[in-house]
Amino acid sequence: MTDLSKETCSACEIGSPLVPHDEQLELLKGLDGWIIDNSDISKLIKEFQLNNYEQSIKFTNLIADLAESQDHHPKITLEWGRVSIEWWSHKIKGLHMNDFICAAKSDEIFNAL
Amino acid sequence: MTDLSKETCSACEIGSPLVPHDEQLELLKGLDGWIIDNSDISKLIKEFQLNNYEQSIKFTNLIADLAESQDHHPKITLEWGRVSIEWWSHKIKGLHMNDFICAAKSDEIFNAL
Repeated sequence: MTDLSKETCSACEIGSPLVPHDEQLELLKGLDGWIIDNSDISKLIKEFQLNNYEQSIKFTNLIADLAESQDHHPKITLEWGRVSIEWWSHKIKGLHMNDFICAAKSDEIFNAL
Repeated sequence: MTDLSKETCSACEIGSPLVPHDEQLELLKGLDGWIIDNSDISKLIKEFQLNNYEQSIKFTNLIADLAESQDHHPKITLEWGRVSIEWWSHKIKGLHMNDFICAAKSDEIFNAL
């Protein structure tokens, strides 16, 4: 399986392809603990446990750096000892390959904390 | 009216007083654009509009600094151009005077950006 964390986000414009459902499930197998929430716009979501607030804000900043470097911006919810990340592609209202790449990169960042 | 932003959070332990409902509404008048969400545990919530992601993460970090300095930690939701803050007191499952103080301090931080 391709190591998604080593890939780079491509430009995502209106009309860029959504990842088909069966492929989403296949890609999900290569990720650690992410779920797909299909309740509204499909989103890749994971809640990370941190030891304290300092770690939570550190992790949040690293994800923000990733977001800026990839020009792809997740929703980050920061609480004491817990950070939730939601990746989806606003312009195509769903999941692009970029979201799976960024999820894999998020795990890599978390594992290197 | 007391300038809440100049006050400091007091220790909040299990058994510390919740702000009574009528007093909550009075304190809310002294804040700018905050709402109280009573759908579950009462929380003070405000969504701040920022110009871009850089500003969003800057504001998030300043609120995190406030949280650490007051030893009172909100839920912060960071998105491109938008940061939502939720203050409530976990130990008493509702609104303590600390939450109103931190809401006022959050506005002060935002206005100084």
